[in-house]
Amino acid sequence: MTDTVVVIYSGGMDSFTLLHEARARGHRVHALSFNYGQRHVRELACARSVCAALAIPHKVIDIRAMGEVMAGSSLTSDLEVPEGHYEEDSMKATVVPNRNMILLSLATGYAVTVGAGAVWYGAHGGDHAIYPDCRPEFVARMDAVCRVANYEPVAVEAPFMALTKGDILARGLALGLDYARTWTCYNGREQACGRCGSCVERLEAFAENGVSDPLSYEAGC
Amino acid sequence: MTDTVVVIYSGGMDSFTLLHEARARGHRVHALSFNYGQRHVRELACARSVCAALAIPHKVIDIRAMGEVMAGSSLTSDLEVPEGHYEEDSMKATVVPNRNMILLSLATGYAVTVGAGAVWYGAHGGDHAIYPDCRPEFVARMDAVCRVANYEPVAVEAPFMALTKGDILARGLALGLDYARTWTCYNGREQACGRCGSCVERLEAFAENGVSDPLSYEAGC
Repeated sequence: MTDTVVVIYSGGMDSFTLLHEARARGHRVHALSFNYGQRHVRELACARSVCAALAIPHKVIDIRAMGEVMAGSSLTSDLEVPEGHYEEDSMKATVVPNRNMILLSLATGYAVTVGAGAVWYGAHGGDHAIYPDCRPEFVARMDAVCRVANYEPVAVEAPFMALTKGDILARGLALGLDYARTWTCYNGREQACGRCGSCVERLEAFAENGVSDPLSYEAGC
Repeated sequence: MTDTVVVIYSGGMDSFTLLHEARARGHRVHALSFNYGQRHVRELACARSVCAALAIPHKVIDIRAMGEVMAGSSLTSDLEVPEGHYEEDSMKATVVPNRNMILLSLATGYAVTVGAGAVWYGAHGGDHAIYPDCRPEFVARMDAVCRVANYEPVAVEAPFMALTKGDILARGLALGLDYARTWTCYNGREQACGRCGSCVERLEAFAENGVSDPLSYEAGC
């Protein structure tokens, strides 16, 4: 097994931590991001800047042309972003059909290309209840198929599967990471909105860790 | 289980037969094709024309932007197309890393979008020895993961898995299909070349069935 890992890196805090976790474990890392027609590119800009600073090879695959398949997601359309907590009804609106399998399949192809033995992605405990493609059963089955899909086996792993978002942040803080280099908000304005489901979860993770979020937020949030 | 099926339809003879097989079994069919930067679009043109004539909903997903991942394949680059029989060394040159998993993942997302319970693709017995992602083990594992990746399970099936290319053609001839409406040749010239691996297999399938191929071929082949 090679020690090279492809990390799916959105630019958000979970995958930012994962990228550093892979380096901390001694892996050679290739970062892979996707432009799937997010309504803003703040996350991707963070990803580019972090990889450049770390001298990590980084590719962005443009999958916007798949918009047809991804129809109905507010991450890729003009629907309103749901606010407040991640609750089942509102969050279903942000689900792209089969999203993680599509991204992991592309990442597995990329792993074959660069000779990596594994693909890592940032699914974690907080996602289980809502997203089928963030559950341990999904990861195990995806791993099983990726091991036989090509001449070289590729493992699929979600090293943060047993952690909450707060746990992941704790790990990153222990590694000394600067979370000003991440972007989480679903809205792509100058400052984070502090109100979308993604911001609310992020702020809760910082509160749990008794640390201030270094990002600046819009007034009144 | 819904009786709607998404058929991955390249425009070639195997998936053309599969499309009609699905109809013959009483399924509602959505056809899905991929433009992955094939060096010609003859196959896709056949697919469009057949679906229009049958009034089957048909989408083409443009995945050319994934060229980065698919690096190294002569189906998507300027490398020379290997001639002669499909032999392991020459055919590896036409393998796109993780190709079938990528296409099946997209098709599964599309199945969720249109409410289909299954995705069919045209892997068959002749592919097993060469392509890992055409083997029964791969299909079984892909099926297992697609059943848990979304809120609604999607099955992945390769109904021609136990057949050879000659068997598939026999089935299509029994259904009365017109193979002039398919395109197989890797080269996109006016007439099929008759010499690339794909043409050679096609011509053998017709010979096995004791039938003339209705396509016209370049002189001297």
